[in-house]
Amino acid sequence: MNPHDLQTTPGWTLARRAERMNPSVIREILKVTEQPGIISFAGGLPSPATFPVEAFRTACDKVLRDDGTAALQYAASEGYGPLREAVAAMLPWPVDPAQVLITTGSQQGLDLVGKVLIDSGSRVLVETPTYLGALQAFAPMEPVVEGVASDEEGVDPTDLAARAPGARFAYLLPNFQNPTGRTMTEPRRQAVVDAAAAAGLPLVEDNPYGDLWFDAPPPPPLAARRPDTCIYLGSFSKILAPGLRLGFVVAPAAVAPKLLQAKQAADLHTPGFNQRVVAEVLRDGFLARHVPTIRARYKAQRDAMLAALTREMAGLGVQWNQPEGGMFLWLRLPRGLTAARLFPAALERHVAFVPGAPFYAGAPDDRTLRLSFVTVTTEQIDTGIAALAAATRQLVEAG
Amino acid sequence: MNPHDLQTTPGWTLARRAERMNPSVIREILKVTEQPGIISFAGGLPSPATFPVEAFRTACDKVLRDDGTAALQYAASEGYGPLREAVAAMLPWPVDPAQVLITTGSQQGLDLVGKVLIDSGSRVLVETPTYLGALQAFAPMEPVVEGVASDEEGVDPTDLAARAPGARFAYLLPNFQNPTGRTMTEPRRQAVVDAAAAAGLPLVEDNPYGDLWFDAPPPPPLAARRPDTCIYLGSFSKILAPGLRLGFVVAPAAVAPKLLQAKQAADLHTPGFNQRVVAEVLRDGFLARHVPTIRARYKAQRDAMLAALTREMAGLGVQWNQPEGGMFLWLRLPRGLTAARLFPAALERHVAFVPGAPFYAGAPDDRTLRLSFVTVTTEQIDTGIAALAAATRQLVEAG
Repeated sequence: MNPHDLQTTPGWTLARRAERMNPSVIREILKVTEQPGIISFAGGLPSPATFPVEAFRTACDKVLRDDGTAALQYAASEGYGPLREAVAAMLPWPVDPAQVLITTGSQQGLDLVGKVLIDSGSRVLVETPTYLGALQAFAPMEPVVEGVASDEEGVDPTDLAARAPGARFAYLLPNFQNPTGRTMTEPRRQAVVDAAAAAGLPLVEDNPYGDLWFDAPPPPPLAARRPDTCIYLGSFSKILAPGLRLGFVVAPAAVAPKLLQAKQAADLHTPGFNQRVVAEVLRDGFLARHVPTIRARYKAQRDAMLAALTREMAGLGVQWNQPEGGMFLWLRLPRGLTAARLFPAALERHVAFVPGAPFYAGAPDDRTLRLSFVTVTTEQIDTGIAALAAATRQLVEAG
Repeated sequence: MNPHDLQTTPGWTLARRAERMNPSVIREILKVTEQPGIISFAGGLPSPATFPVEAFRTACDKVLRDDGTAALQYAASEGYGPLREAVAAMLPWPVDPAQVLITTGSQQGLDLVGKVLIDSGSRVLVETPTYLGALQAFAPMEPVVEGVASDEEGVDPTDLAARAPGARFAYLLPNFQNPTGRTMTEPRRQAVVDAAAAAGLPLVEDNPYGDLWFDAPPPPPLAARRPDTCIYLGSFSKILAPGLRLGFVVAPAAVAPKLLQAKQAADLHTPGFNQRVVAEVLRDGFLARHVPTIRARYKAQRDAMLAALTREMAGLGVQWNQPEGGMFLWLRLPRGLTAARLFPAALERHVAFVPGAPFYAGAPDDRTLRLSFVTVTTEQIDTGIAALAAATRQLVEAG
């Protein structure tokens, strides 16, 4: 809120929550990194090479030819029946299609969860670090967000249990998390679910990347273990395309009707045309043929990045993880070097990344940064990681 | 909120605002009226006969052929540049495309306005009666909504001025309002804008129906008179099709950045594919050829309904207005007969409408009801109004 605006335009009084809204730091970073000639590991976009454009062309034409006026009319807030059925059938635990709410991207699922579960001052638990978009979605409802101690396997169940009393829910991304790329192991999942159940702590599980595994599927979702105490969010953005804005929420009966009412108030319904087109694309096992091509592509690019890091970062004291799927890799700079200091030096060498700090609900680890390996070519990965290593070396040697 | 659910599923604590969320009364009514054989004047849907299905088919194909991957990728929260330019060019006052925010239907515009301008307990002024969807969109932000005294020309400027101190904004629909179909006259518009300006009261102007005039265009919008103190909401739902969920907000600099941040948090962006398809449809003056066909169709149906009412309701003490555009007509039953009592009697005669009561922020006039004249044929109008008159006569005579 700019107090100057309010003074020069009498009458507008902004809601208190508007003070919590801020331009996304990452969005501002992306503006810089979109300059031509920059090799950007900063984006959170899936590779456009994976978008099944021809399948969408065929499906759009069929939907408009066979069912045009229905596809263009107002529709039910719950979503298009056949798409809800397809979503229920995709999930690895028994889900009644009536439990599936289609959302305008899974970001809207986060907005609805915030509206239904967060009062001003409500405590919400998140991973350390966590998805920035969730922090932004919850912020207007004025929660107190607490980061739970986390390691390379996800949140620590003991710290989760300690913080659980009075918290409205814990927001968790078990698979190939944004920003770290880490995966919650099977024992950790069970420990987290057990700790949450013992503490009466509801879970909100966000799984946009779960299908993008490289060697083996991740363990079953948290929601599959205790569907009555977990809201599950999914998305078509990473396995088909984000530009149609299609996500979904699976919620237990205790909250589903309120999520539906919040959905209706928010935008009446998700575009019916988009829902029918995706339902059409999904027919005949399309995902079973399509998703493996995304996995193979992203795996090759992850491998290229890991190889380049091993080659270029030797001796610099830089640490990184080995993501088992998804789009992101998490890197930690040596003591004394922050990502904020590396950023302009890297940009001078025409390479960009996202500093890790904005992803922390509490005190950030300012030596961390996120690298996306999916929208660049393997040649760009080689060149870009070499440039990033050169910038790192320069600053490490300067002390 | 069902307390029983909370008891049987420990852990879920709903936000206080969830108590304000309720299933739409109209939605429940529509379920009843969707039975086969019912002539329904209850819906709020545009006529599917007006949807330019072939234009959408051509546009979808062109967008996916020429620009498929960009159309399917994540996009800017503000909206697609050429569509923002097209919207600015459509509006009858000077609007910079940078002021236009594309929303997921104009319902989302209401959600964003509520988030940015309403605190718990904030006073919000609305017409008597007003659009139910706006009441639902604002409700989660917990305002105190007050109905301003209104007549057949819209809100009363004197009552508006009296209620203005401390109110966050007044929400107004000057053109062919939902639910009444009434239009704010030119002198009333100026009086309302002057009263609001004198009181420092911001306006939120909702104009989904303004292009659907029958004999002459309505007077210029309120926003055209004082753009710095008015948020303007528009929609493509009634002039193209609602199933793509495309609306827009034009906001002054004092609130536009916060609306944008709220939009980003709500669903990242409106589907880019839909935006490009509509921008493609709009090229070459499509609306100038298409919208007159909708006007002609709806005018003929309004005329049929007015003629049927005059013919069938004679001597019953029923009053109705003569909408100059839009989709709805407002009817008032004689003293002693409520719309709630007429509803089941009408349904027995296979005709349905929406009682007026849900559209009132305060004490309802329970003798009012809304009739849509656009999704029925003129033959159905004749039959349906005759049945409605028969049901009315039966109840009037029964006393």
